[in-house]
Amino acid sequence: MTQPLRLGIAGLGTVGVGVVQIVRRQAALLSARTGRDITISAVTARSKSKDRGVPLSDYAWEDDAVAVASRDDVDIFVELIGGEDGPAKDACEAALARGKHVVTANKAMLAVHGQALAAQAEAAGCSLRYEAAVAGGIPVIKSLLEGLAGNEITRVIGVMNGSCNYILTRMESTGLTYEDIFAEADGLGYLEADPQLDVGGIDAAHKLAILSSIAFGTQVDFDGIELEGIERVSIEDIRHADDMGYKIKLLGVAQLTGRGLEQRMMPCLVPASSPLGQLQGGTNMVVLEGDAVEQIVLRGPGAGQGPTASAVLADICDIARGSNLPVFGQPAESLKSVKPAPSVTPAPYYLRVSLHDKPGALAKVASVLGDAGVSIDRMRQYGHDAPIAPVLIVTHKCTRADLDTAIDAMDRTGVLAAAPIALRIENV
Amino acid sequence: MTQPLRLGIAGLGTVGVGVVQIVRRQAALLSARTGRDITISAVTARSKSKDRGVPLSDYAWEDDAVAVASRDDVDIFVELIGGEDGPAKDACEAALARGKHVVTANKAMLAVHGQALAAQAEAAGCSLRYEAAVAGGIPVIKSLLEGLAGNEITRVIGVMNGSCNYILTRMESTGLTYEDIFAEADGLGYLEADPQLDVGGIDAAHKLAILSSIAFGTQVDFDGIELEGIERVSIEDIRHADDMGYKIKLLGVAQLTGRGLEQRMMPCLVPASSPLGQLQGGTNMVVLEGDAVEQIVLRGPGAGQGPTASAVLADICDIARGSNLPVFGQPAESLKSVKPAPSVTPAPYYLRVSLHDKPGALAKVASVLGDAGVSIDRMRQYGHDAPIAPVLIVTHKCTRADLDTAIDAMDRTGVLAAAPIALRIENV
Repeated sequence: MTQPLRLGIAGLGTVGVGVVQIVRRQAALLSARTGRDITISAVTARSKSKDRGVPLSDYAWEDDAVAVASRDDVDIFVELIGGEDGPAKDACEAALARGKHVVTANKAMLAVHGQALAAQAEAAGCSLRYEAAVAGGIPVIKSLLEGLAGNEITRVIGVMNGSCNYILTRMESTGLTYEDIFAEADGLGYLEADPQLDVGGIDAAHKLAILSSIAFGTQVDFDGIELEGIERVSIEDIRHADDMGYKIKLLGVAQLTGRGLEQRMMPCLVPASSPLGQLQGGTNMVVLEGDAVEQIVLRGPGAGQGPTASAVLADICDIARGSNLPVFGQPAESLKSVKPAPSVTPAPYYLRVSLHDKPGALAKVASVLGDAGVSIDRMRQYGHDAPIAPVLIVTHKCTRADLDTAIDAMDRTGVLAAAPIALRIENV
Repeated sequence: MTQPLRLGIAGLGTVGVGVVQIVRRQAALLSARTGRDITISAVTARSKSKDRGVPLSDYAWEDDAVAVASRDDVDIFVELIGGEDGPAKDACEAALARGKHVVTANKAMLAVHGQALAAQAEAAGCSLRYEAAVAGGIPVIKSLLEGLAGNEITRVIGVMNGSCNYILTRMESTGLTYEDIFAEADGLGYLEADPQLDVGGIDAAHKLAILSSIAFGTQVDFDGIELEGIERVSIEDIRHADDMGYKIKLLGVAQLTGRGLEQRMMPCLVPASSPLGQLQGGTNMVVLEGDAVEQIVLRGPGAGQGPTASAVLADICDIARGSNLPVFGQPAESLKSVKPAPSVTPAPYYLRVSLHDKPGALAKVASVLGDAGVSIDRMRQYGHDAPIAPVLIVTHKCTRADLDTAIDAMDRTGVLAAAPIALRIENV
């Protein structure tokens, strides 16, 4: 047996403690599987005195992450602090500068600084692995980076924020408003300290940016993502979508088009009977499509101590077994810089229009849609008491630009009682 | 860039041609991702003259597989012939004996000779990879072997034969009998040349044996699998199961128990609303459960040219990138030999009983179940014209042994008009 592989762990929150627990509990199994003992040399966290329910006295304590990353007795620096800058990034850079491998769960850091960190890791001949950064326990990075390496990836789709999916499916099952369920989720501790990271779609967009880079051989481009959170999803739209055979999901979609890299993270409709449509609660799902494999669907817990620690351990075991791949699947210097192409791909849209209940109103709406080249697949007008008539339209495939032209024209007709709601439909 | 990685391919059926196509079409991509050119040195197949729609004149032709496996200009021998013995095995052994890596899609060979081949490969320092052997394009071997390496695996469950799932879901949607749909599937070319491999559950059991070995660190034990095909699944049971909220699937289940390794491949009921219950047609699904990750579900095409070739290419890319793992995740010599423990785990059962319509008949059935320690969760007696009353029972969890005791006793009461049908229910 070769030398033990020695970890230095920065961050002892839920995930960090989960990693320590697995390393202790499964020492024999990890050794059998990797051919090496996996040990912990040093740890650091905000508070040394806090009782975390796991014995830490066997490990050296450092007061800061850079110190852990710099120790001679650390082979892999495990970064579980989080945050795109600050101590997490400083320590990862310090580890790589000293020729140490890095395993991280930090999606924000990779989404923003992934290109620079990948270049540094590869120049140093080190691994930088991040399975835990995307979709928790689901081995989606490995599946994309290695399992589908023989494919030209055509599309990546995912529900990658469990809190948002919890809120949306709970709104549907209870009939309560976004505000009510948001408060409930917050009370249950399901949301990040800054809830905007969840409900604003930022956390999920970080993950999408990482997947895009691997899928398309492009530089990570978080800023290029067309981003919209779930705050404006109404219970009315959830009900109407359901009525038309759809569910509303915060859906990430990435595809490389002739006009650039299309990356979207926004509420979309998916068929109710599809795997994505059936996804309830905090579970994550990622759909990977390639020219050879057609489509695979991966489903599992997107967060939580065990699942996230499982992903961290997968990276550690890979390194222990001698794996050393380019960070995003091909050398960082070869990753292309591609311009963002927001919503260029045509799609059907769900359109909810509130009309003043006057003769000819519906005809005007239909007419401006036609003028803009948007054709109607299905339309429903619901019975109503108020002087406002709710109308639902599912369009045939059209571009968002044409739809926006139609919506602008609709607004000028004077028949609208409120701004129309338009949501993209992804047929997965 | 290092030396090209040179393939020798034996078997140019659908999958072999798919591999050739990807190597030709995606040469630049494969090179970018692995850092090496991937080339083909030699091929062999049954007929040299057959037009396979892909140019082969660039490659040396050999008349037999061992010759391909033995060539000096072959680094990886790609075995796509199939069959547990014969030329496939001879050629794999020849390749390993000459220090060449092997990539194979041959589930039968691995299920039967996996232990010996793994020992040979590891002694030679060679990779033996087989992603394509299980669940086609789904990266399930990689997920289990690497992605969940930090987990003690608790259970593996899967629908891993697309033809069987096609037959069962098609019976349900059409209301036709097994015989009718079998004939339809056979006519469409969905079944193996020997259909018993499919409908007898053998093909799926080969796959389960491979997954068990990785999951539990045990020697591949195909003979230890409790095996039952789908031939006796009736349209009545499909309908009744549906009525009780279940679907019937040919389900593989493996778990390590205190009494041995439980491996089953047999028709089971699963909740209709579960991912497995919702699986339609020829798609495969594997559920992996571990102590840390909880549960992940992988879904995708289990067969077909592109998906299977995608899996073969994943293995080739791994080898090109320098990966060299023990064949079943830990050294072959350390894999445990564990005795088989068929159906020791208690489960609820679905029981269909046909009673002579006489007073007290139902009471006798309930009584013998109670005497055997099998308690009833739900029971339904259906309206009937004939002098035979169909009764459906869902039991609480019980052992198969206790249930069999009850069924034997039931038989002796004289109230049975036909042998009862008992199917295990897996709550996944």
